[in-house]
Amino acid sequence: MDLKSYLKERCQLVDDALNRFLPLADDLPASLHKSMRYSIFAGGKRIRPILMLAACEAVGGNISQAMPAACAMEMIHTYSLIHDDLPAMDDDDFRRGNPTNHKVFGEAVAILAGDALLTEAFILLSNLAAAPTVPPAALVQVIQEISCCAGSRGMVGGQVVDMESEGNAEIDLATVQYIHTHKTGALIKASVKSGALLGGASSKDAESLTRYGEAIGLAFQIADDILDIEGTTEEIGKDAGSDEARGKATYPAVMGLAEAKIRAAELVDIALDALSAFDGKADPLREIASYIVKRKS
Amino acid sequence: MDLKSYLKERCQLVDDALNRFLPLADDLPASLHKSMRYSIFAGGKRIRPILMLAACEAVGGNISQAMPAACAMEMIHTYSLIHDDLPAMDDDDFRRGNPTNHKVFGEAVAILAGDALLTEAFILLSNLAAAPTVPPAALVQVIQEISCCAGSRGMVGGQVVDMESEGNAEIDLATVQYIHTHKTGALIKASVKSGALLGGASSKDAESLTRYGEAIGLAFQIADDILDIEGTTEEIGKDAGSDEARGKATYPAVMGLAEAKIRAAELVDIALDALSAFDGKADPLREIASYIVKRKS
Repeated sequence: MDLKSYLKERCQLVDDALNRFLPLADDLPASLHKSMRYSIFAGGKRIRPILMLAACEAVGGNISQAMPAACAMEMIHTYSLIHDDLPAMDDDDFRRGNPTNHKVFGEAVAILAGDALLTEAFILLSNLAAAPTVPPAALVQVIQEISCCAGSRGMVGGQVVDMESEGNAEIDLATVQYIHTHKTGALIKASVKSGALLGGASSKDAESLTRYGEAIGLAFQIADDILDIEGTTEEIGKDAGSDEARGKATYPAVMGLAEAKIRAAELVDIALDALSAFDGKADPLREIASYIVKRKS
Repeated sequence: MDLKSYLKERCQLVDDALNRFLPLADDLPASLHKSMRYSIFAGGKRIRPILMLAACEAVGGNISQAMPAACAMEMIHTYSLIHDDLPAMDDDDFRRGNPTNHKVFGEAVAILAGDALLTEAFILLSNLAAAPTVPPAALVQVIQEISCCAGSRGMVGGQVVDMESEGNAEIDLATVQYIHTHKTGALIKASVKSGALLGGASSKDAESLTRYGEAIGLAFQIADDILDIEGTTEEIGKDAGSDEARGKATYPAVMGLAEAKIRAAELVDIALDALSAFDGKADPLREIASYIVKRKS
């Protein structure tokens, strides 16, 4: 399969759905809805929604069953970026080459746009009940999975430990692993698992896909750490080497670049192994696993 | 009935449940969980959860069916207060006589504690699926009601318009009504309606209780506006007259104090009227409606 065209086509499908699901830019209050849309349409790669759709298809489901939840996941991811960029947090002026949300709309609206995107995700998820193909019990399980992975013992917890570790020269591997599996890995795992649940996976298949999701979630963040060192500013859309400059807790920082690359490759193997019982419908998941550690942006 | 003892007893029940449902203060990351608990246990009156429990009982339900959702509602209310108090928003150093969350834990953790409380609310709601008395379909309807009322076309939207209207001398009644029904009214209405749904209300009863909730939600905020003028700093836990000093959009500001009092009383009548077909099990809701406009804090 041609992964590049696949990702491009799926990205477009997700963008179209996000455009349909989000409140219009003119809906009151317009400043809030413009701000929400600004960050949603700021050039995201839609990795999480694409993974959710692919997991749904891998178990024989149709992507329409997972699309609202896939968009909900992108909303949660986007809210986390808006809040991470705030002056009180990472204080970033640019993301993917564009001014960050608070630089355009001000801090107050940026905070509220993040809050609203997080909330909108649960509106979308609960609206799924109207889809006759999604049983309410599966839907509630998906809401539980996504909220747990996004909360204080998931993504938000990872962000707190990441922040508190910044500039600390004594960070150990266990802490970096905590940060990566929580801050980035949790939502990626939740995307894959939710796609499986919405596609009607057997519990065995859902378990295998969860293992796949955990492995690529961690691999994705290690690859990000490596890109921060080896990528150019143009490729990664932010200053190369910024993690080291900030004293960020990363895999290369605690185990060296070569060892980090080996670890990322091992995780891809674990991910592929988790898919061994799946047929060709899981090929996109296989390709994405390899792509995650080879990408240049 | 003795409303004072009733509210005190219910407040204690809600506090106990919040203590059970929230992650422990020592759970990692401890700073985040301490911050979440700090604001949850900062002396709230628990009006929203108490209303949810009372609505559940008014339709013949047991409060255990609604307690997790009642706590979820208090978490959403508390997250909104933490974010409203931030320097980029209202910039408040004190709330109910205590230092605000960001004064104690710093802005970054305060933002994340708010995010985590909002997310935790949906964890709690989805956990309700384990309760055999709550059918998944009703649960999804409650999640939809609560998320819609908390989102960009509900509470967050109201906060944006409130902020944007501050200092604007030309505010009209329609704008004040938008702010009040969205910023405060939406969650109060959602509390009452969700309690009804979780208690197994007929659609006719759920509709009546929704009308009750809408009326007291607006009455509650008008009463707050009036208290800001007539209450003492000690009673209301913040500087009296602060709304006027900030140029806040309030009912007394657009229609005068006397007219605002009449409007609040009319809304209580509408609320009581909505309960006319209910028996004695709705007495707490009746008493609370009257209390809302008579309270001194």
